[in-house]
Amino acid sequence: MLTPQNRLALLMHGGIKGPFGKTGIGLLRYSPATIVAVIDRESAGESLGALTRVPREAPIVASVREALAYQPDTLVISTAPSGGLLPEEWIPELQEALLAGLNLVNGLHTPLAEHPALKPLLHDCQWVWDIRKEPPNLSVGSGKARHLTCKRVLTVGTDMAVGKMTVSLEMHRACLARGMRSRFLATGQTGIMIEGYGVPLDAVRVDYASGTIEKFVLELGADAEVVHIEGQGSLFNPASTATLPLLRGAQPTHLILVHRAGQTHIRTFPDVPIPPLRVAVELYEAVAAAGGSFYPSKVAAIALNTAHLSETEALEAIRQAEREAQLPCTDPVRFGAETLVDAIA
Amino acid sequence: MLTPQNRLALLMHGGIKGPFGKTGIGLLRYSPATIVAVIDRESAGESLGALTRVPREAPIVASVREALAYQPDTLVISTAPSGGLLPEEWIPELQEALLAGLNLVNGLHTPLAEHPALKPLLHDCQWVWDIRKEPPNLSVGSGKARHLTCKRVLTVGTDMAVGKMTVSLEMHRACLARGMRSRFLATGQTGIMIEGYGVPLDAVRVDYASGTIEKFVLELGADAEVVHIEGQGSLFNPASTATLPLLRGAQPTHLILVHRAGQTHIRTFPDVPIPPLRVAVELYEAVAAAGGSFYPSKVAAIALNTAHLSETEALEAIRQAEREAQLPCTDPVRFGAETLVDAIA
Repeated sequence: MLTPQNRLALLMHGGIKGPFGKTGIGLLRYSPATIVAVIDRESAGESLGALTRVPREAPIVASVREALAYQPDTLVISTAPSGGLLPEEWIPELQEALLAGLNLVNGLHTPLAEHPALKPLLHDCQWVWDIRKEPPNLSVGSGKARHLTCKRVLTVGTDMAVGKMTVSLEMHRACLARGMRSRFLATGQTGIMIEGYGVPLDAVRVDYASGTIEKFVLELGADAEVVHIEGQGSLFNPASTATLPLLRGAQPTHLILVHRAGQTHIRTFPDVPIPPLRVAVELYEAVAAAGGSFYPSKVAAIALNTAHLSETEALEAIRQAEREAQLPCTDPVRFGAETLVDAIA
Repeated sequence: MLTPQNRLALLMHGGIKGPFGKTGIGLLRYSPATIVAVIDRESAGESLGALTRVPREAPIVASVREALAYQPDTLVISTAPSGGLLPEEWIPELQEALLAGLNLVNGLHTPLAEHPALKPLLHDCQWVWDIRKEPPNLSVGSGKARHLTCKRVLTVGTDMAVGKMTVSLEMHRACLARGMRSRFLATGQTGIMIEGYGVPLDAVRVDYASGTIEKFVLELGADAEVVHIEGQGSLFNPASTATLPLLRGAQPTHLILVHRAGQTHIRTFPDVPIPPLRVAVELYEAVAAAGGSFYPSKVAAIALNTAHLSETEALEAIRQAEREAQLPCTDPVRFGAETLVDAIA
């Protein structure tokens, strides 16, 4: 739904420096659309490149009104708070965007296409894309993705928001560059905005969670050498249980464990420790195989998020993670995904 | 919503002898309401006691029309097919019940209160109770149930439909009989029909799954010595991923592993093996504790479903399960729940 012809303004107040801006950062890094402005009153006027290290420039402005000067055609809600509800105080800015003729992309749980404060403002050619809607025609899982002949690579994490989507996308691109028939399955709102296709797993009812993933994996996997499945959540974060339906539905052949270098506790629950990497590896493998019931998936490599470290520190952290996990490791954003793709080859 | 004053007719075609009748069997065993008739054309005229061994008698009839002779006030849809959708061919019988003035209790995913073929038939005092609706005002989980001082006992299974609800209810009753302040948290449609309260976990969106369980456990646990949480699904069944939100939301102090004696493969997926009991115990404990992130829950005992065995065979199967799992074991329906309650004492 978002093409290179679209001109996006990303609404992400507080998201550039705060913890909830990963949707906006993901779009800046990977969206094929043009991004004409980023709206974040906390960082207005600062340099996007310096703040985020994403390889794309766009002005940071303080409001939707200021963004209009850059002629966007679509406003994208680009922060993803845990729980995903619409803060009421955002409504005036959304109204302003709709009155100016913009389309709206919405990855929150709160649907906006029928919102009484917004719907009356829509003209005929304007649209609201509510991404977090359960797909139709679901059924329960059967585990039959394990019979596909393609590789199925799932990213799993030591926490939420450590970079699983980024790692899956980097691996997908590296596979394409090697000439492989590679597909990417988006499972969260950002991935779906980038790819225009996928499963908003968080919005699917528990009964259908593994079945929905399975349906999409079977579809993509029928004609691919490798399917990269974007991971969600973490077995170590009490807020999320999306990892299990991904494991059951995708029946991955390989896992990539994503970790933020140096992180010892869950970011939003500082009293919940993250176990050592080797323990995390073994738990993910144990849950995937379930004592022989399912595909005996192994963690093939560690993807280390070193965005907060210097290059020397990053290299040292990678060496240390390799020793701890007894597995290949790299930061694919910083050093390329070749090490990870080699590990699944 | 169902009181001892209600007069129920249970709609369960094919459910008495087939695999999907567990809602009806659960109501026959535990509902405080009067059950005036069971509707199952496959078993009409046969003896309910002989077919099911539940300690309650009721006539088995072939249709809603025949059931009306026993003056029911409420029709309960009492089969629970995997996936939980309404078969279209049931609608004429539901219409007949509504035209006769009956209320309707519905545990399927398909909501019926607003169904266009049914709603016009409802009179003022008639009601339709759609149980599988997501509760309002949800948030994501935090893991804070681990700070409660009460015991939190969760049943987990080697498969779905092995008797987890039954085991939780038997343990709850045995705890009450010992004078303990015991509470039961229903997490599926049958438990909610029996208890009038609970979480239809299957109908909750993935993002809110652990948070919903947590909310109810915190509420019940604030004033209890022990909360028995009805388990759902199985880590070994590809159709279900409800176990993880139960573990994260309830932060159980004790697990009870429920197994059907002699079962080696998932019933609805005969090519998916169930691992040995000891392996299953270790996997559930590993997932619960997650390498030290959460409450270090242990499996306290095995509850063995021996309904299909003679008493001698049942006792031998229990002894064998004890040896295999290195844990206490009994069939609480057959021999009482004392062994299980002792194991959590």
